[in-house]
Amino acid sequence: MADINRVLRLDANHRLWLEEQPIPVPDAGEVLIRVRANGICGSDLHFFARGTLGPYVVTEPYTPGHEACGEIVALGAGVTGRRVGEAVAIEPGIPCRRCRYCKMGRYNQCPDVRFLSVPGIDGTLRDYVTVPADFAHPMPPGMSWEQGACIEPVAVAVHAINRARLALGATVAVLGVGPIGLLTVQAALAAGAGQVLALDRQEMRLALARELGATPVHIAREEPVQAVRALTGGEGADVTLETAGHSSATMLAPEITATAGVIVQVGWPEIERVPYKIETILAKELDLRGVNRYANAFPPALSLVGRGAIRVQPIITHRFALEDAPAAFAFAHAHPDQVIKVIVLNEKPPAG
Amino acid sequence: MADINRVLRLDANHRLWLEEQPIPVPDAGEVLIRVRANGICGSDLHFFARGTLGPYVVTEPYTPGHEACGEIVALGAGVTGRRVGEAVAIEPGIPCRRCRYCKMGRYNQCPDVRFLSVPGIDGTLRDYVTVPADFAHPMPPGMSWEQGACIEPVAVAVHAINRARLALGATVAVLGVGPIGLLTVQAALAAGAGQVLALDRQEMRLALARELGATPVHIAREEPVQAVRALTGGEGADVTLETAGHSSATMLAPEITATAGVIVQVGWPEIERVPYKIETILAKELDLRGVNRYANAFPPALSLVGRGAIRVQPIITHRFALEDAPAAFAFAHAHPDQVIKVIVLNEKPPAG
Amino acid sequence: MADINRVLRLDANHRLWLEEQPIPVPDAGEVLIRVRANGICGSDLHFFARGTLGPYVVTEPYTPGHEACGEIVALGAGVTGRRVGEAVAIEPGIPCRRCRYCKMGRYNQCPDVRFLSVPGIDGTLRDYVTVPADFAHPMPPGMSWEQGACIEPVAVAVHAINRARLALGATVAVLGVGPIGLLTVQAALAAGAGQVLALDRQEMRLALARELGATPVHIAREEPVQAVRALTGGEGADVTLETAGHSSATMLAPEITATAGVIVQVGWPEIERVPYKIETILAKELDLRGVNRYANAFPPALSLVGRGAIRVQPIITHRFALEDAPAAFAFAHAHPDQVIKVIVLNEKPPAG
Amino acid sequence: MADINRVLRLDANHRLWLEEQPIPVPDAGEVLIRVRANGICGSDLHFFARGTLGPYVVTEPYTPGHEACGEIVALGAGVTGRRVGEAVAIEPGIPCRRCRYCKMGRYNQCPDVRFLSVPGIDGTLRDYVTVPADFAHPMPPGMSWEQGACIEPVAVAVHAINRARLALGATVAVLGVGPIGLLTVQAALAAGAGQVLALDRQEMRLALARELGATPVHIAREEPVQAVRALTGGEGADVTLETAGHSSATMLAPEITATAGVIVQVGWPEIERVPYKIETILAKELDLRGVNRYANAFPPALSLVGRGAIRVQPIITHRFALEDAPAAFAFAHAHPDQVIKVIVLNEKPPAG
Repeated sequence: MADINRVLRLDANHRLWLEEQPIPVPDAGEVLIRVRANGICGSDLHFFARGTLGPYVVTEPYTPGHEACGEIVALGAGVTGRRVGEAVAIEPGIPCRRCRYCKMGRYNQCPDVRFLSVPGIDGTLRDYVTVPADFAHPMPPGMSWEQGACIEPVAVAVHAINRARLALGATVAVLGVGPIGLLTVQAALAAGAGQVLALDRQEMRLALARELGATPVHIAREEPVQAVRALTGGEGADVTLETAGHSSATMLAPEITATAGVIVQVGWPEIERVPYKIETILAKELDLRGVNRYANAFPPALSLVGRGAIRVQPIITHRFALEDAPAAFAFAHAHPDQVIKVIVLNEKPPAG
Repeated sequence: MADINRVLRLDANHRLWLEEQPIPVPDAGEVLIRVRANGICGSDLHFFARGTLGPYVVTEPYTPGHEACGEIVALGAGVTGRRVGEAVAIEPGIPCRRCRYCKMGRYNQCPDVRFLSVPGIDGTLRDYVTVPADFAHPMPPGMSWEQGACIEPVAVAVHAINRARLALGATVAVLGVGPIGLLTVQAALAAGAGQVLALDRQEMRLALARELGATPVHIAREEPVQAVRALTGGEGADVTLETAGHSSATMLAPEITATAGVIVQVGWPEIERVPYKIETILAKELDLRGVNRYANAFPPALSLVGRGAIRVQPIITHRFALEDAPAAFAFAHAHPDQVIKVIVLNEKPPAG
Repeated sequence: MADINRVLRLDANHRLWLEEQPIPVPDAGEVLIRVRANGICGSDLHFFARGTLGPYVVTEPYTPGHEACGEIVALGAGVTGRRVGEAVAIEPGIPCRRCRYCKMGRYNQCPDVRFLSVPGIDGTLRDYVTVPADFAHPMPPGMSWEQGACIEPVAVAVHAINRARLALGATVAVLGVGPIGLLTVQAALAAGAGQVLALDRQEMRLALARELGATPVHIAREEPVQAVRALTGGEGADVTLETAGHSSATMLAPEITATAGVIVQVGWPEIERVPYKIETILAKELDLRGVNRYANAFPPALSLVGRGAIRVQPIITHRFALEDAPAAFAFAHAHPDQVIKVIVLNEKPPAG
Repeated sequence: MADINRVLRLDANHRLWLEEQPIPVPDAGEVLIRVRANGICGSDLHFFARGTLGPYVVTEPYTPGHEACGEIVALGAGVTGRRVGEAVAIEPGIPCRRCRYCKMGRYNQCPDVRFLSVPGIDGTLRDYVTVPADFAHPMPPGMSWEQGACIEPVAVAVHAINRARLALGATVAVLGVGPIGLLTVQAALAAGAGQVLALDRQEMRLALARELGATPVHIAREEPVQAVRALTGGEGADVTLETAGHSSATMLAPEITATAGVIVQVGWPEIERVPYKIETILAKELDLRGVNRYANAFPPALSLVGRGAIRVQPIITHRFALEDAPAAFAFAHAHPDQVIKVIVLNEKPPAG
């Protein structure tokens, strides 16, 4: 066990640096984890580039990162069901366990949830972190650290598909195939979709979506409503998942969805009020369901990645060592068209 | 059995008149019904006043009316399970029975549904009408013709509550308490709501909502988000039903709804694109569910009105005879603030 | 605040006595409650009479009682959202909050749940008790202590109806109308049942069921399958709730249930293996759903009793003071045909 | 188009023979299908060997077969959405379209359903058959006749998984891996199961289950409750599907199912009353759901077989020509341990 704890810090002036901190001691019910890998999320990049996201603002230095996995190195008092040496994926939103949302099984809606890496709450881009034992989820045998670092975004996709209550054989459309969209394509297929359409305007992403089992629709080249209609026998998609995070996609969703269908809204549009055709929701009797992170989604995410039903390797485009994390952020910010997912490994990856 | 069939007609010039037509003969699987009462729907009034509604336009004369009940006077070939003399409420949307929506139990979404009183398809404001036997639903003993004529709007409220999948004890908000809103208030209470808030700006309607069990919120006098919050321990409504049919209510719905809550959209906003806070849907992980008429809702509507769990008498404000139907339309159009539900009785109501 | 804490004790020799114990001190997150009333449950009586129930055996003396309410008299560290002086109903099953069942919203299935009054875990028949603050549920204004003591069995009925996912207008049959059955009849009506049939063989219970809105079926006088068929137009009940706790009722349930219907099993049959017609489950494509206590059911139970949709007063047949609790147990055990629910009040009830 | 219509006949004396009948003419709404392949179902064999099954008895000669596909060769009046030359799988249960079950989307529960091949209603083991156009489901491009003949049993598996409402990542146990069990294993994996356990006592079947993705449990060599526990971290299966059709499997199901889990009963036990541990249903709060054929399951079955998510080729063990259908029945009846699925092709299969 290394005896230093390198911790990435980000401040309001867009500066990123590593500093050393004491290795934390697990409280009762917690485990101490030696972190092995992190994915960099779009939200981490957003705080880096703009210092703000929705209601959150970077004021004091804090630690980014919430897509992490590692190895348990110590158990706090009273912990059962976990053991030292176990590889775990870290679920980063710790709820109060006592409010009505926690008790009804929607703990991601807990008003007092502590989400690691939200400014003010330190994240996982460091060598050691403590979390409640039940938020450290055992990785199946043979899963790599890189894969483990992708479980958090897979959990977003799994939760979106859970919210969709996808029927076997359903026709699915995914709007936007960045990292979350590409995982959502796979989660839809893993859940028994009959056909998955992937809509985007970037060639690389569409090619990847096709490789992962989707039928690509290039929305800069084809009128999307007509294209979806043509591919679905005139019906539209039974389930549409909006993962693009743009108002144009949000507005498109009801139009490409079949009567009696479901829209799952995952992406946050860039504007507060979206000119939305509520009458399409009425005429087709659609369901629109919002998604905000996930609950109870890590175990299925681990299971599906473990048995190969969802593959994360194809979405990993770049790797950096923790000591180069500032460069990783700068690179990802500078090359949005090349980057899908950047992984930061705590140990320097082997050359070649 | 009367030997004439008086039929109300409406043309594109806003003219209404009664004419005589032959009594129709029921086809195989149909019943012939002697109509006893109709309610006048807002959509009937809209076609009368403006000649158009959504995609529909009055071009040729047709017969309005789709909130009707009556007595079976003849059975077509092969009809079982119905008998001459039976009092029935008429479900006015006849589906194809063969498409995927019909077969999945959402036959109101059938693309080939024939909805009586949509321009081009004659409605029920007449003395005799034929419908498929299974769309003539037996009225429970003791139910009056007036009550029977209200089953159709009750079915809208029942379907809205079915779409809400209301949990026992849920806090419900109803936006707009016209006829549908007042029935929805009652359907929510009948379904086990813990508390129902009624939001409107008309005194008469709010008074009636209170009488029917709701807590009124006068939105011209109170800021509605604050008012709902104060009445719900800060949580908001678990389920919000928008029955006002105005974009301001549509936009208000997510703001007064609790985290993890449900919005059922019943009313059609007056504008095509509503500036909608999708981010509230995301942040609170809400469900928005559209409603377009109903399916499988007549039997429960009849049952709940029959046992007094939903009372329609308080929403009936005016009565006319069929021969005075043109005057009924003119009155209802001229006095929107006095009228909640106008009933047209085929036989002249007794004086006094 | 009284300075003594009288505590009822039961031992393996069927002896019941009151003893004095120190007033407990609330831990962090807990509240101290001055108990005001308890209902006596059938399980309490069972342990009194037989010393055993299912896997549980009375070995050491312990305190019965888990249908309780009272007044908060002190708050442990960190408690928010509760205040001294508040009247609360006590939810008696305290889960671990960390296992998969707790996190999926089915915390009653927590393998480490601590259920007050199970032998080895002291119950609520005493003057003071501590519970986690979130398991002390505020009673609505105007609710009496007697009513508060009935919230726990109401929660059983509410959970059973939640498990049934009752549709508006559904026809419901309740097998056995003891305390839980009578509350289930009301919960079904409160949830929008169209008709509720109550099946039993005791006149008093059937009369009470009728008074509470059910259609009684005396199963010693009528063949129940025929009787239910006759009352439901030949269909059977859409939902059957078995609350009798006898194998004959368990076996009857599928036979009186309509095709595509639901059976909710609440009562525990007296034999381990019930000769069950699985082929009826298959032929009619029924759902059979087990019930084991409740989760998230106290708030709706309080709300529905608070607004009068479920009335508990009619099921309370006898009242005793805490100092007479041993006599209360003896009386209830000796007079099963007269007793529906016995309430034990911590303060002597006023004479008359 | 061949000008003869060979039709297989079965009588009460276990005799099977081919006879010629006129080619039927499609009624309005129907299509005429030239049949290309049939699977032989266990129920066909049962009627052949015993002349009876459940309530059905062979009295007059009739035509077996209900797992069929073919080519549309003529359209009845008014048929749209189908075309001559189209390859279709035949859904063999034709409902009334008017009863409450038809209208709620559970048309397999229609009391007047006409199921082809039930004694008295001729089945599909012949050259030409007519069915309603909407019960002739288009086969995706490239699907073989053999595959098309397996869509009916796939629909059973799809319906069973639909009834299970399988969550992503769920642990599934399938009891009995005959034809339906092997398809159910695949449907569970296609629906996102994390792990599927297959329990049986036949080596060949277990080997096939393993090849199709399941973890085999040989119940003659391992104590099944312990084995399932060991493979599921002590939890049991989230969903258990009973496809063995034996009371021992029916009784085992609750014991191997996890707390809060679901049992889907597909197989019919050989005895009327199964000694069933209802108390396990209660203690674990299980759901037991019956399955009786399928509704709305052909389109997803076609879609999943079409994209390779369910493979039927591995379960086809034997092939015969229609002229040898009597021999096919005799063979399948005589060799239950070698046969999984026998296909009868209307045209003689190419040699080799």
